[in-house]
This record gives sequence, structure tokens and C-alpha cells, in this order.
Amino acid sequence: MKNDLFLRALKGETVERPPVWMMRQAGRYLPDFMKLKAKYDFFTRCRTPELATEITVMPIEQVGTDAAILFSDILVVPQAMNVPFEMKAGVGPWLENPVRTAADVNKVVVPDVEEELGYVMDAIRMTKAELDGEVPLIGFAGSPWTILCYTVEGQGSKSFDKAKGFCFSQPEAAHALLQKMTDTTIKYLKAKVRNGVDAVQVFDSWGGMLAPKDYEEFSWRYIQQIVDALKDEAPVIVFGKGCWFALDKMSTSGASAVGLDWTVTPDLARKWTNNSVTLQGNFDPSRLLSPIQEIEHGVKEMIDGFGKDRYIANLGHGILPNIPVEHAQAFVNAVKNYKS
Amino acid sequence: MKNDLFLRALKGETVERPPVWMMRQAGRYLPDFMKLKAKYDFFTRCRTPELATEITVMPIEQVGTDAAILFSDILVVPQAMNVPFEMKAGVGPWLENPVRTAADVNKVVVPDVEEELGYVMDAIRMTKAELDGEVPLIGFAGSPWTILCYTVEGQGSKSFDKAKGFCFSQPEAAHALLQKMTDTTIKYLKAKVRNGVDAVQVFDSWGGMLAPKDYEEFSWRYIQQIVDALKDEAPVIVFGKGCWFALDKMSTSGASAVGLDWTVTPDLARKWTNNSVTLQGNFDPSRLLSPIQEIEHGVKEMIDGFGKDRYIANLGHGILPNIPVEHAQAFVNAVKNYKS
Repeated sequence: MKNDLFLRALKGETVERPPVWMMRQAGRYLPDFMKLKAKYDFFTRCRTPELATEITVMPIEQVGTDAAILFSDILVVPQAMNVPFEMKAGVGPWLENPVRTAADVNKVVVPDVEEELGYVMDAIRMTKAELDGEVPLIGFAGSPWTILCYTVEGQGSKSFDKAKGFCFSQPEAAHALLQKMTDTTIKYLKAKVRNGVDAVQVFDSWGGMLAPKDYEEFSWRYIQQIVDALKDEAPVIVFGKGCWFALDKMSTSGASAVGLDWTVTPDLARKWTNNSVTLQGNFDPSRLLSPIQEIEHGVKEMIDGFGKDRYIANLGHGILPNIPVEHAQAFVNAVKNYKS
Repeated sequence: MKNDLFLRALKGETVERPPVWMMRQAGRYLPDFMKLKAKYDFFTRCRTPELATEITVMPIEQVGTDAAILFSDILVVPQAMNVPFEMKAGVGPWLENPVRTAADVNKVVVPDVEEELGYVMDAIRMTKAELDGEVPLIGFAGSPWTILCYTVEGQGSKSFDKAKGFCFSQPEAAHALLQKMTDTTIKYLKAKVRNGVDAVQVFDSWGGMLAPKDYEEFSWRYIQQIVDALKDEAPVIVFGKGCWFALDKMSTSGASAVGLDWTVTPDLARKWTNNSVTLQGNFDPSRLLSPIQEIEHGVKEMIDGFGKDRYIANLGHGILPNIPVEHAQAFVNAVKNYKS
């Protein structure tokens, strides 16, 4: 690997400067991405290895991040499980028949992932060839809880009340669904590693909707299964938006790194993770709308706070579509030019 | 006041049992509310004192909460400021021309609230007469930051990125807008107290979207102005959804009580508020979908955690429309029947 900063930070090694990448770095803020978006619909881009590869490599070439993350979507996993999500114009993810009963859960299958998600594996091999050892490649999956949220709600939501209501009123069915999702995700991430990804990240976008006790029951215990199954095969990063209350258990889970949103200060994050693990984050994506000088100042402050070692600079959530490319570039450069 | 449990808990006095009310307790889960909703549109219900009174008193009679909260909406304040929000079918709050520039901010006015919001004052006097000293009446307002969110975004949002982008790219205009909102809110809440409300609550529904430093700059400093201006006239409750990181400053602000969402455990909440203030919350509204026995168990556990004194039982956010009335009733009764 020509640039192995990211993998060294995951191992906790001393580095010259922190590595940097951005969640959703292959996204709508890139004009070349928009050109592909105009020509191919969302899941076509996910399912066509040539397109997924081109999109994955784009931010490495154009913004210069230290890691690539395979272009895909967390909902390709339920799609392979007989939960046929579509992308509906003006709505986003859409499921005609949401899963709402034990009978619905029975129809959800744990698939042969190499077969059903072969296009992801093809994209990994193609991307690895294209990257040619330049930077590491990250593979990802949604957490079982986050996938359940969409699967029960049938679409995005501000508070996923239907999903929570399903768990609280039909806990047995909910756990059966979560276990199927966990089993599939483990197989999926293991296949990704076999096909070449250098690290995996689990996104728990909606874990923060749950009270700590409910988070433990409906989200964390399944993420822990995934970490247990994967940690000896590749470094695992766990990221839970709004999950400040779970940082302690994340830090002792066996994951190599813990991702943070911007509500947690570096001091608290180091304290709550017992100063024991690599941290990743946590620049507020909206702050990339600030003038460039303020972005540079904010990055310096952030790295000063976390320290340059056992730290991966990133945003606290995905980059927004309306960020000027020069601002994304300024963020990445500010990390690369960091001097303590 | 026949039932002054709520006011005594706000003063920190020893009580027989904690008082209980529910955010949005006059809401869509009540069949009689739905009948009025079918006949009168949203802002007609807010603007007609007879209707606002009937709706405000409804949960006192039908569910038996220990406090009433005046039926209204946080957006009546910007409406009075030349920011003409409508309620759009299928969308929710809607502003045809969102505030996005310094010139837009200049057009926002600090109104004569007794005149522009006279219908609220009428509703307060009418409700007080109707309540006839049975239970206290709470008045409320949105925090300036939360009102800015809607005013800049022009509608609801998952992450209020446009509102945040406005603050980060045009901070001077943002602060000018926030100060106008603060000045209006102070006049509005003082007028409410003059007209008879027994306590006021400030709702910062979207404070948790901000990093702690940005929260201090764009939300908290304005809430503090409101607390400073109101605290000698009536007890003030501050509630910030997702604002766990600000509990310390809330507890030393002069507010009589601090509201909590369900992500904060009682232990942490007491610790972070220095065991110095009355706490209010924090049952997950979705948990009211659990079987009644589990609701009862959850309420017992919650009160055991917070302790019966310096505590007001409530939900951690507004009650959901799909909660069976019997479940809301079970929640209220479980508090009333609490034995340590």
C-alpha cells in the first residue's frame, strides 16, 4: 500500500499526520458524480461494477482523501433479503410493502450473498485493481437496527416511530428480523473482506433514536455480533449517529475505531472511550459551508483536540450535496497540512 | 390552586408523589381532539380562544394530568413577526419565502405582542377561568434557534442544513434574526405570564443539531436571555431535545426545571445538572406503544431513577398520534399510583 496512513491509524501506530476521508465522499458535491447521476439511476450506479468503481475512485483523484469507500448503499442488503427497496423520486428509499408483522418477517430470507450481491464483490475487485495499491478500500454495511428502521417504516423518517413501535409491541418478531439482518450482514462483510476491502465500517445512523437500554437490546447486541465475527479478518469501525451514550461499550467491543458525530467534544470522546481506541470524526458537515479560513481553523482545533495519533479525521456524518468542492478540498488539505 | 403538585415540584419542595403531564398532551391521540381537527384547520384552532381553551382543558378532564399547557404552536411567534407560516397539507409548517439573506432579516419585525398575539392572551384568560384553579397552566415558546430553523429552512427538515448553513456562512444576519426572535419571545412570554400562565417552557427542539460550541453561540445564549428576563416573573422550564451536552449550563441558568429526552439516564441527568435543579421527562414516547404492564414497569423504574422530589414526570418529547388513549392513561395513572 503506497499510502497506508489510514490502516496504521486503525492499528494505533504513530503517524506523521492523521489520515483523512469523508463519509459520502463520493457524492453529489462532486460535479463529475452529478454527470453520472444524470445518466444512471441510483441502484444502477450501485449495481454496475464499472460505475461503482469510477465513483469510488473519483474523490481519491479529485479531493485526495487517504482512503476510498466503496460506492454502494446500505439498502442493497435488504434488497438481497427479499425486501425490495426502490429509490422513489422525491421520496428517497421506498418499500411498497413494509415489514410490520411476524408473518412479514418470515418472508425475509438470509441469502447467499456472493450470489445475490455478486455485483458488489465484482465492484470491489475492479476498484482494488483501479486503486492499484494507492490507498486502502473501506467496505460498509448498515447496522441491523438501522436496516430495520427503513424496513419497517418503508421509507425515511424523522423519528422512525413505526419502527420503534414495532420493536416495542412485537419484540419477538423484531428480534427475529434483527437476527436475520445480522446473519446476512456478517456473511456480506466477510465476503467483502475476501474480495479485497481493507477495513469495514458499520453505520448505525438511527441508533441515537433509542434510549440507552433499548439501544443495547435492539441495536448494540447485534453490532457486537458483527464486530465479533469480523474483527479477526479486518479492522472494524463502528459509527453510531447520536450514540454518545454507547461510546464506552463501543470502545471495548473489539472494534479498531469508533466513529463520532459532532455533538461529542474530543475530550469527552477520549474520556468515554477510556483513551483506548482510535477515534474517527467529527467535523459538522454543515460547517463546510463556513468560509475556507474558518474550516482550516476548525480542522486545526479538531486535531489538536483529538491528537494526531489514534485518530482519523472525518466528518461527523455524510458530506452534504451543497458543499462547494473547494471547501471539501480545503478540509482535506487542512488535515494534510496539520502541524501541532 | 387545588392541585399544586406541579408548582411545588418546580420550587423543589417535598411532594407526596411527582406531578405528571405530557408534552403535546392535547393532541391527535385524543378522539375528541380529532373531531375538532376535522372541523377547524390548525391555525384556526390556535387563533380561536374558545377552541384553544376547549383543547387545552381536554387532557385534564380525559387523562387527568397535573398541569395544563395552552394549546398553541411555536410558529405563531414568527407569524406575528412578518414571517407568514402556513400549515400545508402533507408537508406541515410551510413558508413560501424563507428568510435567507440579511435583507430578508431586515423585513422581520419585533411586534406589539399583546396586539398581534392577542388571541393567545384571550385564550389564556379563558382557559384560566375554565380551569377554575384546578391545575396550573403552562405557556410555551420555541427557542430562537428552533424558530430560526423553520424560518430559514421554510419547512421541517431532518437536519436543518440550510438553517445551519445560513448561520455558518452569514453569522451576522443570523444573530440579528436570533436577537429579534429573542426580544419578541421575551415580550411574548412576559405577556403570557401577565395574562395568567403559572409557568413557561422554552422548547429547543433542534438544539441537538448543533455542536456544543455552535449551540452556545446560536442557541443557548439566547435561551439564557429569555431565562434571565422571565425567571423572576414565573418558573421557567428549559427543554432541549438532543442537548445532553448542555445540561450543566441549563442547570445553572436560573431555570426552575430542565427537561430531558429519553437518551439521558436519570443518574447521568442528576450528575450533569449537579443535583441542583428539578428535572422533567423523559419516557420515550414510542414506549407508550408497549403493553400497559410494561408501561407501568417503565414508569416505576423512571421515578425510582429520578427520585420522587425535584422531579416532574413527562415524556421525553411530544406524545405520538398513534398512542391508544388507554396507554396514555396508564402512563399518567402509573405516576399517580407511584410507591417507592
